[in-house]
Amino acid sequence: QPTYGKGRCSCVDKGSDLVQPKALGKIEVIPKSSSCDHVEIIATMKATGVQRCLNPNSKRVQKMMTTLIKKRSSQSTHR
Amino acid sequence: QPTYGKGRCSCVDKGSDLVQPKALGKIEVIPKSSSCDHVEIIATMKATGVQRCLNPNSKRVQKMMTTLIKKRSSQSTHR
Repeated sequence: QPTYGKGRCSCVDKGSDLVQPKALGKIEVIPKSSSCDHVEIIATMKATGVQRCLNPNSKRVQKMMTTLIKKRSSQSTHR
Repeated sequence: QPTYGKGRCSCVDKGSDLVQPKALGKIEVIPKSSSCDHVEIIATMKATGVQRCLNPNSKRVQKMMTTLIKKRSSQSTHR
């Protein structure tokens, strides 16, 4: 879970490799900056509102992000 | 720009295809839900804090998202 204000970065560890795509609500991608030297990905669970850090170095997480955008947008008529 | 509360979705149009990666701050990916039938991508500009909708159907935006995560995470020693 993200710990805002505790350190320089929002996530205390490298984050999770595993995530249930169906459980996902909003996903925030926070680029590296002067306050944190690496990109961070924070997912908010749809049902509970709980926030979890995802590991941006995980191939699984990277693939999940791509799939999420491509799949969900192609189902839409909104072009 | 996103218009919260004005309609069912946060973005009024399909969003921008063009974005300067260096100008990007936080990026939010909002999956489709009961209140909006397609995925939305909202970027916050680093310097100004201005929010802009990006087109999730744009190949350029999809590529930018992938590059952002992969490039910035590989520069880090945080694994």
